[in-house]
Amino acid sequence: MSSSLIQEIFEPLQSMRLIDPHTHINPHSAASKTLADILGYHYYTELAHSAGMPKGQIEEPGLAPKEKVGRLVPWLATIENTAQYSWLVEMCQAFFGFQHDRLTVDNWESLYDSSLKQMAAPTWEKQVLEQSGLDQVYLTNDFDDPLQGFDTRFYVPCLRTDDLVFHLPKKAVQERLQKATNTSPSCSKGLTEAIEKLFVHFKANNVRACAISLPPDFIPAAVPAGIADDIIGKVFSGRDLTTDEAAQLSQFVFWTLAQKCSEHQLPFDLMIGVNRRVYEAGVFQGQDLFDTRVSLIQYKALFNAFPTVTFPVSVLAETSNQELVSYSWIFPNVVTSGHWWYSNIPVFIERDTRARLQAVPLTKQIGYYSDMYKLEFALPKFAMYRRILAKVLAEDFVIGRKWSVEQAISLGKRILRGNVEAIFGGCG
Amino acid sequence: MSSSLIQEIFEPLQSMRLIDPHTHINPHSAASKTLADILGYHYYTELAHSAGMPKGQIEEPGLAPKEKVGRLVPWLATIENTAQYSWLVEMCQAFFGFQHDRLTVDNWESLYDSSLKQMAAPTWEKQVLEQSGLDQVYLTNDFDDPLQGFDTRFYVPCLRTDDLVFHLPKKAVQERLQKATNTSPSCSKGLTEAIEKLFVHFKANNVRACAISLPPDFIPAAVPAGIADDIIGKVFSGRDLTTDEAAQLSQFVFWTLAQKCSEHQLPFDLMIGVNRRVYEAGVFQGQDLFDTRVSLIQYKALFNAFPTVTFPVSVLAETSNQELVSYSWIFPNVVTSGHWWYSNIPVFIERDTRARLQAVPLTKQIGYYSDMYKLEFALPKFAMYRRILAKVLAEDFVIGRKWSVEQAISLGKRILRGNVEAIFGGCG
Amino acid sequence: MSSSLIQEIFEPLQSMRLIDPHTHINPHSAASKTLADILGYHYYTELAHSAGMPKGQIEEPGLAPKEKVGRLVPWLATIENTAQYSWLVEMCQAFFGFQHDRLTVDNWESLYDSSLKQMAAPTWEKQVLEQSGLDQVYLTNDFDDPLQGFDTRFYVPCLRTDDLVFHLPKKAVQERLQKATNTSPSCSKGLTEAIEKLFVHFKANNVRACAISLPPDFIPAAVPAGIADDIIGKVFSGRDLTTDEAAQLSQFVFWTLAQKCSEHQLPFDLMIGVNRRVYEAGVFQGQDLFDTRVSLIQYKALFNAFPTVTFPVSVLAETSNQELVSYSWIFPNVVTSGHWWYSNIPVFIERDTRARLQAVPLTKQIGYYSDMYKLEFALPKFAMYRRILAKVLAEDFVIGRKWSVEQAISLGKRILRGNVEAIFGGCG
Repeated sequence: MSSSLIQEIFEPLQSMRLIDPHTHINPHSAASKTLADILGYHYYTELAHSAGMPKGQIEEPGLAPKEKVGRLVPWLATIENTAQYSWLVEMCQAFFGFQHDRLTVDNWESLYDSSLKQMAAPTWEKQVLEQSGLDQVYLTNDFDDPLQGFDTRFYVPCLRTDDLVFHLPKKAVQERLQKATNTSPSCSKGLTEAIEKLFVHFKANNVRACAISLPPDFIPAAVPAGIADDIIGKVFSGRDLTTDEAAQLSQFVFWTLAQKCSEHQLPFDLMIGVNRRVYEAGVFQGQDLFDTRVSLIQYKALFNAFPTVTFPVSVLAETSNQELVSYSWIFPNVVTSGHWWYSNIPVFIERDTRARLQAVPLTKQIGYYSDMYKLEFALPKFAMYRRILAKVLAEDFVIGRKWSVEQAISLGKRILRGNVEAIFGGCG
Repeated sequence: MSSSLIQEIFEPLQSMRLIDPHTHINPHSAASKTLADILGYHYYTELAHSAGMPKGQIEEPGLAPKEKVGRLVPWLATIENTAQYSWLVEMCQAFFGFQHDRLTVDNWESLYDSSLKQMAAPTWEKQVLEQSGLDQVYLTNDFDDPLQGFDTRFYVPCLRTDDLVFHLPKKAVQERLQKATNTSPSCSKGLTEAIEKLFVHFKANNVRACAISLPPDFIPAAVPAGIADDIIGKVFSGRDLTTDEAAQLSQFVFWTLAQKCSEHQLPFDLMIGVNRRVYEAGVFQGQDLFDTRVSLIQYKALFNAFPTVTFPVSVLAETSNQELVSYSWIFPNVVTSGHWWYSNIPVFIERDTRARLQAVPLTKQIGYYSDMYKLEFALPKFAMYRRILAKVLAEDFVIGRKWSVEQAISLGKRILRGNVEAIFGGCG
Repeated sequence: MSSSLIQEIFEPLQSMRLIDPHTHINPHSAASKTLADILGYHYYTELAHSAGMPKGQIEEPGLAPKEKVGRLVPWLATIENTAQYSWLVEMCQAFFGFQHDRLTVDNWESLYDSSLKQMAAPTWEKQVLEQSGLDQVYLTNDFDDPLQGFDTRFYVPCLRTDDLVFHLPKKAVQERLQKATNTSPSCSKGLTEAIEKLFVHFKANNVRACAISLPPDFIPAAVPAGIADDIIGKVFSGRDLTTDEAAQLSQFVFWTLAQKCSEHQLPFDLMIGVNRRVYEAGVFQGQDLFDTRVSLIQYKALFNAFPTVTFPVSVLAETSNQELVSYSWIFPNVVTSGHWWYSNIPVFIERDTRARLQAVPLTKQIGYYSDMYKLEFALPKFAMYRRILAKVLAEDFVIGRKWSVEQAISLGKRILRGNVEAIFGGCG
């Protein structure tokens, strides 16, 4: 009975069209061209490497796509238990008519060849979008992205600011900033003006959010202009910063971004808790981990200082979810956002979803984003989320609280899509 | 089958009479007078504010109760998913004959008017207590509460000590202490004697526990008398303390309270983990949050130093529950106590309950307290807990371990009430 | 339906023979001789003490086994809810034909007497092993264990190194090391050579792992030889170390052990997170607790420095499980290992198992070890784990992901035993 109830709730959620509010899609090459684009996703390469596949076999220069897939496939037997593997099979079945439930050394090649033909069709991107029910796909754009050559109404720009906040001491980043803004900052005022130019450029191109990922030890704070002036003068004249100065520069830039979000009425997506390059010998994008010892209390000053800025917050560690729930319950400008990275597996999604639905206003929950690099991933990832959402709505609301099925579905739609439109702005 | 089993266990738990071992009831005005007393509970005002309702609309000076409810009701649509909202509907249905499952702009006014009549009855308080099955209600009393004018056998005093431990540098608190004890402490001995007088006063008035809430960074420690003398002399002569001195004063007072609990054979309720005033622009009582980075290892010295004092411990963060379970499993004087505040929603209660029932002696678990400010809240809050307790007993004990239903119910009764009597003392 | 499915998966898992990859069995006295050996397990003495039984009654010198059991039994009524109690009843039923579901003051004595006869049989050890389906039992051996007088193919040595890493400043430990290695280290080279001798001795006796338990604040690091030389010279000449020096000595020895594991191709079992002697007045082995504020980021340098050493990692706090899952997902040399101590109860095992099966390569998960001191405990502990494993396989894989029952069983067998053989080496 419970499983037919879940199905009854799942179906309308599954058939509704979506906005994906956070991806890493390249709008100039959004869909996969070969199975290597799919299996090259770091979730597969890092798991295969973790299971024993040498990095050199995966990242050999000049490796042909088919050869790469052929090398990865034997290792899939070691990760077929993972949620990530289930996405792979679901993609192959949904998009390529794959009939098996395992991708093996015996069946991969025919799949490779047949899928190659399908992906070569000029309508492939459109077909994937249609089959996935995507109305909009939010991007992750470098601060110096020209934002040209694609439809920003569909592929919606988001200003990603990790480079500005954490890598400004790098010569290359400074040069990119100078080129993008046609300015050479040498003080806090100059740097603020340069950042303003970036916001103006992005606002002119339908930007819907500013975004950043943050390490566990980051603590936002206002930095006095005088101190910032010295550091900015120093770093832009090519001198090295001390650790303390670099930290203050990060704080200054971050605070300035929040200020600009306020002025330009942009939500500021915070993805909190990642340590970069923990496993330096790991595969591309498979080197980062985390430290659960992080608290949203570190963001107290920020949340208080910018009451008009909406902060959709993602946390990397599931142990941070209760804080996220509680801070969203108290602060009007904090909203829960998706299930990020190491927390994006069913066991954690279900727990997080349950707690959020029980204690955060229903208008303040962004249910899910795919975080995908290639379009094909939205379908299985959102399907995973929709199954869990349907289960929680069935168990906690229809059974547990005697809601009608219609009320539960309505709540589900709000979490899945309605809040994305309300918080970031609707389509078009 | 499982749901009828849960029901079979739930019914005797639901019909048994209760002692509520921690509330904020004002014994001189225990029941609500209008719906505004219920909707004015900070759980609703803070959630409505979080969803977008301006604080000024909630806390406007001189606001009439009916107007306040009328302003809050439209915002309830944004929080109808929350557990807190379910309490509201259950209260309205149980006490006021409310026939709907939503409180809306269309139906609130008739509810307001009809409930107003019911609450005006001189027997209202008695009626609520009877319907809720409450045999005793423990209070939260300021250290200078005269404890007069109410039946302390029913409304049981608890000595709340946050002011003494954390706010003694404030002139007003010093004056209250001097007035309550008729002493002017100027050294550790004097302050200890003043505290002794408070204990004597409370003991003469049926006190059952000393209680305090503690921030995540608090570490209890004994402070040498010489150091305490200097600090106490300084603070009571009106001079400012350094941060270190203030921290040591807190430690000294806290340790002295534990000593007095030992001498007067009182349990010492510790509610661990709250950060006060994190969101300073929040509504009344809606400003506090927490930091999960806290450990019971901070209480090592305390638990070892006072083996004869029972410490019922509540933790604010669900991530602290396993430590609480383990410390209660090892230390004879540590017992688990309820599900506090941000952890008082079904998803966390169920997890906590499961772990405690699997690993803590059954005599050392205080299942639940309401933490209520108005009597009407005991009914829905305890009902929520009893449903979860029945579910865990059914699944983990009757099904999982083949206990008889009678054994499971007996365990449930112990957790719900038996241990409250054993740990704090029985009725009367 | 779900419960018959669980049963269908459970049966083949339950009937398969096992290797227990971590115990504290004394191979010269592996099975219990009286019920006091079973009830003397610290899980029971510490819980009885926690429930109120004075330590003096448990640890009275010269106490006869039967008297000890007679004293403990009345306290069992206070802990019959615990998972540990369920192991006790299951052992008594499985091994001694006990017909009741409670061990009480009325029935314990006849059980004591009848079980005494059974345990006196010369075949008792063999009988327990057979009934428990154990093919191998891994030990915990002091570094100076002669490893003589037992079959190391069955009772497999593991080199336990807590004493070397944390207690080398103790005169007694130094003397044991000098005696075991016939050397007197006075510098880093000498100490390294002494440790090499230990490894050679253990390797000659079928050692399968090096192992250690670590406090939450330990951070592995390489220590320069020059610094190590000074400290080692100082400590072996009987002088006291500063806190910093002691910490560096621990780091040096630990790092040297990892180096030796690399050279001798031994896995290094890390059991992370225990604080020793937190409750100093507690019963034997019932004094240790933990601090959840620990992160695997502390092991970053170690995991990077020794890519050829496999680290089976156990974490004490369930809040550490997601980090363990994620580090095992990224680092090829990190694998998940069992459910340790305070996390070894069903609620935490189930959560941990679910997350690991969803995100860690199936080749990198050591499902369970008993941690037992007496052979009789493997049966109920592994049974508990197998029930949970069957439940998770049924719910998440057969129902949730439409795997066949055979596939789910195959995965279960891998987790239960296959990986133990692959990681530590097969039988014989």
